[in-house]
Amino acid sequence: MKNIAMRLMYDGTNYHGWQYQNNAVTVQQTVEDALSGLLGEEIKVTGCSRTDAGVHALDYVLNFRSDTNIPAERLPYALNYYLSDDITAVEAWEAADDFNARFASRGKQYIYKIWNNRMKNPFLSGYSWHIPYNMDRAAMKAAAVHFIGEHDFSAFMAAGGSQKTTVRHITRCEVTEDKENQSLITVTVEANAFLYNMVRIITGTLAEVGFGRISADEIPVIIEKGNRTMSGLTAPPQGLFLKKVYY
Amino acid sequence: MKNIAMRLMYDGTNYHGWQYQNNAVTVQQTVEDALSGLLGEEIKVTGCSRTDAGVHALDYVLNFRSDTNIPAERLPYALNYYLSDDITAVEAWEAADDFNARFASRGKQYIYKIWNNRMKNPFLSGYSWHIPYNMDRAAMKAAAVHFIGEHDFSAFMAAGGSQKTTVRHITRCEVTEDKENQSLITVTVEANAFLYNMVRIITGTLAEVGFGRISADEIPVIIEKGNRTMSGLTAPPQGLFLKKVYY
Repeated sequence: MKNIAMRLMYDGTNYHGWQYQNNAVTVQQTVEDALSGLLGEEIKVTGCSRTDAGVHALDYVLNFRSDTNIPAERLPYALNYYLSDDITAVEAWEAADDFNARFASRGKQYIYKIWNNRMKNPFLSGYSWHIPYNMDRAAMKAAAVHFIGEHDFSAFMAAGGSQKTTVRHITRCEVTEDKENQSLITVTVEANAFLYNMVRIITGTLAEVGFGRISADEIPVIIEKGNRTMSGLTAPPQGLFLKKVYY
Repeated sequence: MKNIAMRLMYDGTNYHGWQYQNNAVTVQQTVEDALSGLLGEEIKVTGCSRTDAGVHALDYVLNFRSDTNIPAERLPYALNYYLSDDITAVEAWEAADDFNARFASRGKQYIYKIWNNRMKNPFLSGYSWHIPYNMDRAAMKAAAVHFIGEHDFSAFMAAGGSQKTTVRHITRCEVTEDKENQSLITVTVEANAFLYNMVRIITGTLAEVGFGRISADEIPVIIEKGNRTMSGLTAPPQGLFLKKVYY
């Protein structure tokens, strides 16, 4: 059997996240149904990440086994006829037999978008966190730097994970403003792996730094204490995008 | 009575255009209903432009008469509670008594977005024209320049307009590529006023230049002949955004 890898983009607005669930439409189920219909065999896919309901992916990687004779490179074109406009197969290739989209990942980059303006933006309501209050962006930028490095991120994890260790290595964490529109703030976080809701809790904590409720200098203390009650709120899902997976 | 001016942003996806229609949800009707509910009087608004179904506005201006005691500056905050997420009141002010959002306009800027990639983009399906073929962008840029100036644009007008003259003055017409993503092409057109479907026909003509079906040098000839059958197809509505109105 071939081991086929594929890159997707998806708008998560209308899905209950990536992972298969009973009685809920998920991206995984939708892609498996489309692939199974196209290839005439039951396809099960392995995804690189379990994105939550409402979270988006700009570059998602999955793999699956198939006996198909269709060249892997042609699959996205055919598959896109089976998929609705909110999921696009971008590229596919025949991977090494032992490639696993989840376990082969060496790291991922997420971005989180904040619309920081008194008025909501109709084009960003499903794609950002609307914060109508003034935020101290310099403080947020200073705070972001403190997340970089190898740390135990227990304070930035929601209950429900099943990981062996809570140590992760963040290689990039920064807060930037869009050049054309200062109201649009992007939080970029890159790490070898992530804990459950980690980017959303880091973003919520950076927002509280912006509000002046947490100071930038407290971040190392919060990391060290490992106490979830000291970190900030969990930013809502719709601002989060999986941007890149590294192999 | 006060004459109140207001700036809106709207995502036109779910509306049958700006203008009031029987048996169809339009932006004008939605805004009038919200204002009437908020102010407790029947409000009729005058909009700066009649956008078509599916067309968006980044900065739309309207005006209306009201006896309200609410300061104009506070109105957007209150109104946004009555409006769904796809329309936002951004700003309001008390205008001169003779201000008319339609007739006072000295010019407008529209942008049209083309997603030029073999694969569709889930985030741009309602906000761009997906063109999966290679386009000669240098030729499109050269062609755009020919639209600048005062011309009779009869060849770039759909039937149905009621204008006295078909002469318009285009002050800016350019084709640009997004720096971060070369697949995203923007056509920007600025003029003193526009004919019906003018930006969409100019964009469709530029696309045909990109495909090699019309050469850049033919544009002045097509303008001069004033024959709609010589210009290109009408680009679909969802890529069009009213970006700015000048007073």
